[in-house]
Amino acid sequence: MEIPKLEVEVDSEMQNGACVVLKVARDSGVTVCFANPGTTEMPFVGALDQVAGVRPILGLFEGVCTGAADGYGRMTGTPAMTLLHLGLGHANGIANLHNARRARTPILNLIGDHTRAHLKYDAPLTSDIESLARPVSVWYRSVATEQDLARDTADAIAATMGSARGVATLVLPVDLQSIAVDSSASLAVPVQPPSAPAFDAAHVDEAAALLRSGERVALLLGGRALSGRGQQAAARIAAAFDAVCFSETFPARTERGGGLPDIDRLPYFPEPALAALAGRKVLLAGALAPVTYFGYEGISSELADPSDLVTLAGPNDSADEALVALANTLADRLAADGEPAAAEVAPWPVESGALTPQAVGRLLSNALPEHAIVSVEGGTCGYPFVTASSRARHHTILTNTGGAIGQGLPVALGAAVACPDRRVFALQSDGSAQYTIQSLWTMARERLPIVMLITSNRRYGILQTELSRNGLPVDAPNSSKLTLLDDPAIDWLALSQGYGVPAERVDTTDGLADALARALAHTGGPCLIEMCLP
Amino acid sequence: MEIPKLEVEVDSEMQNGACVVLKVARDSGVTVCFANPGTTEMPFVGALDQVAGVRPILGLFEGVCTGAADGYGRMTGTPAMTLLHLGLGHANGIANLHNARRARTPILNLIGDHTRAHLKYDAPLTSDIESLARPVSVWYRSVATEQDLARDTADAIAATMGSARGVATLVLPVDLQSIAVDSSASLAVPVQPPSAPAFDAAHVDEAAALLRSGERVALLLGGRALSGRGQQAAARIAAAFDAVCFSETFPARTERGGGLPDIDRLPYFPEPALAALAGRKVLLAGALAPVTYFGYEGISSELADPSDLVTLAGPNDSADEALVALANTLADRLAADGEPAAAEVAPWPVESGALTPQAVGRLLSNALPEHAIVSVEGGTCGYPFVTASSRARHHTILTNTGGAIGQGLPVALGAAVACPDRRVFALQSDGSAQYTIQSLWTMARERLPIVMLITSNRRYGILQTELSRNGLPVDAPNSSKLTLLDDPAIDWLALSQGYGVPAERVDTTDGLADALARALAHTGGPCLIEMCLP
Repeated sequence: MEIPKLEVEVDSEMQNGACVVLKVARDSGVTVCFANPGTTEMPFVGALDQVAGVRPILGLFEGVCTGAADGYGRMTGTPAMTLLHLGLGHANGIANLHNARRARTPILNLIGDHTRAHLKYDAPLTSDIESLARPVSVWYRSVATEQDLARDTADAIAATMGSARGVATLVLPVDLQSIAVDSSASLAVPVQPPSAPAFDAAHVDEAAALLRSGERVALLLGGRALSGRGQQAAARIAAAFDAVCFSETFPARTERGGGLPDIDRLPYFPEPALAALAGRKVLLAGALAPVTYFGYEGISSELADPSDLVTLAGPNDSADEALVALANTLADRLAADGEPAAAEVAPWPVESGALTPQAVGRLLSNALPEHAIVSVEGGTCGYPFVTASSRARHHTILTNTGGAIGQGLPVALGAAVACPDRRVFALQSDGSAQYTIQSLWTMARERLPIVMLITSNRRYGILQTELSRNGLPVDAPNSSKLTLLDDPAIDWLALSQGYGVPAERVDTTDGLADALARALAHTGGPCLIEMCLP
Repeated sequence: MEIPKLEVEVDSEMQNGACVVLKVARDSGVTVCFANPGTTEMPFVGALDQVAGVRPILGLFEGVCTGAADGYGRMTGTPAMTLLHLGLGHANGIANLHNARRARTPILNLIGDHTRAHLKYDAPLTSDIESLARPVSVWYRSVATEQDLARDTADAIAATMGSARGVATLVLPVDLQSIAVDSSASLAVPVQPPSAPAFDAAHVDEAAALLRSGERVALLLGGRALSGRGQQAAARIAAAFDAVCFSETFPARTERGGGLPDIDRLPYFPEPALAALAGRKVLLAGALAPVTYFGYEGISSELADPSDLVTLAGPNDSADEALVALANTLADRLAADGEPAAAEVAPWPVESGALTPQAVGRLLSNALPEHAIVSVEGGTCGYPFVTASSRARHHTILTNTGGAIGQGLPVALGAAVACPDRRVFALQSDGSAQYTIQSLWTMARERLPIVMLITSNRRYGILQTELSRNGLPVDAPNSSKLTLLDDPAIDWLALSQGYGVPAERVDTTDGLADALARALAHTGGPCLIEMCLP
């Protein structure tokens, strides 16, 4: 991660407030602006042509912008900027800002506002921006005067990478965007360098004592513990102490394949998750205390008793370095027991026939080029893919951290902008793809070679599962109307073409293998494969 | 409007909480549920098969649901119900709830929540629902216990049609949806009848005195004043007293054509709006004090000085009856001056040639069947249509009241559900159509014979205008990237086909006339016409 400079460069010309904000952002390392502007952001749009160095990328819907900023920030560790129109444009981006909040992704969330004098008239587009923004922001401020423009921008960027990493929302009234500012006075603000992640050595000693005590232990990895280095240290420790090792269920970013140890995700449903942790102390390395995704009658929300939790490192700590330190502390035992077996890198055998979720997972795993990035949203093929992908070449997986759906395609978009030298895949269920379907257009516009794999089963599978868990029939007329998507079936080829993205449809394993080969050869822009499952 | 019954019918069976809520809603006149449910709404989904009488309609995105509920409520005057998944599903619906708030549309906004005991664990999908819902709600409550289920539902419905009409948000924890409830105890709640709109006779006398004083007057009509009856009374008064008469710029619902007087909308941009009202007292009939849409430097936000405002009736009053009473009070003068000329009902002549916004407005005006409903979003063809449509057969126009875009297609959807015997048109700009493009699928699913006319000019025209107003170039590279939609051009035929909606493309006046004739003959479901403009 690049450390922002301590002093923003000053130029001596008079300029407007939007240029000040943009220069501070640029000089702090912001290079991309995912934008869906309106009237109150026009001076800022103009500034993008006056201040060089920030690339504007248009989304047709704000959820595309905020999700893309999330994907970008997960890959670079530094914030992208959004540009949203008032409280309601922001509102369209809330769902993916929530996911970014759960992922602790740094994002500079810039919202234009009415001119300050206009707010009291409660014009049609006026709304309570603060009430709408606070729930997803670790930091919120509306710029009050032109003297605050540079300082507030610097504070916002520092907040994105501060002790509570995440979304910093900066509201910029349009009169302060267009106001003339003497740059020499306003830009000389110190930008705080982000706090470097660290860990607490005392926790390492406590964790070592726990493991040496002979207690049965489960290591639960999250955050930075899911770097390759973190996973390797965790697997060595687990092998030596007969501990089990899990990833949090929905990590913001995890490395996988390429000989990394095969670390399972903690199961989604509470019953198997409780079974996985039963009778063990849970050592938290970058993960929060595990709780069920939803609350179910008669099942504890806590997947481990609080008295069984031991924290090695928190979600904002350098949990991977804490694991390495723990391995070093336990070196006497690790040396004796040797290295854990790395997962083999090898293609899966896949039989010819109709597509199944397992076959999809294996075929995608087989096809991944070195250092691919895979954005996964939706359970039908998502779980089978992660199960399979330990045998793939090295890749990075990005998952839906906050559960607000419509996140997979925008995150793939942002990751592709962040990493132009890596191939990006989106493994996406059909239902959830619809929430931010406009992502396809921006992918085509920016010529991003993203391969989208749409699991087309024409239903909300998870809801049918949950109906059954509630003892309700899945085929009653009205519940069917709310869980089946087959009337009409979405024509993904046409839809994709509508946004300028070439597409093909497959329903067999051989067909998917061939389509993936063609997709890999297609480097000039995105493509989409509709995978028809029964 | 149907008045809800004072006592909800009781049935003696044991039932769950979701059934209780659904029965109270149904027995209060709610017949439609625009839903995008998730796991925490499954008992409610199940209840839709156990309690007859509420039609579930699925949206692939929540903004479709909330906008459809707005369109439904504008046409019926009674609330539809939404069913949204937690705070983040609701967040996707905020933009159109904001528009409904500005339209004062009654909506029962139902949000499922985690089981109460689960909230404290801050699971991935937990968010501050109240902070996200308050800005768009006239009423907010989260049901606390099973004893409150019926009462809270009745209170919410009463609030939608109470003195501050609008969106009532009721949060329903999933454990209270599935809990067993003794129906005989819980359902016997009195449902408050909505307060009947009224007006203040003293204001009528003040308005009469103003007009008789000889002051120059502008009548500004909003809310119920835009019924046919209200407009006719206003036009008679205006003709007798040489007053000018305007509709508010973005009315929730206005009647037009069929011989109604041709009442212009107050202009959108401040300069012509100020000129229209200059030197006149402004008599407010159901309209708020007029303010500019956005604030501009050097231009007053108030389009009339507060000392020049006289209120005849407020936005929630029966402003049309107030206008009729005013006309009666002034009968001596009206009789002397006679009736105002009604607008002629006659087709516009349209020359063969390339499509222009004026030609689109006139051709649509010519094509409207008696009692059509037209949802208008986007300025390019929207203004020319309203200018033209005084000569159409009687129709109802619904506009974007709150400025959060993505409202036109869902409102058309909801209006079509509310009024199956009337033809519904959506006159929609291409940029704004994208925000809730998933509306097409629900229209196809429900076989709603909506005719969508997409103004395809492949740009955000309003933003180019506003760039120019800011003295900025419209063709600089980065502003072009944020205002032009031509790379790639959206293929509307393919997109529409993707959602199961037949479509055709026209670029001439004769082509559009023919396409409209075919669309009118197409009664089995929606269709779309892409109108290519230069």
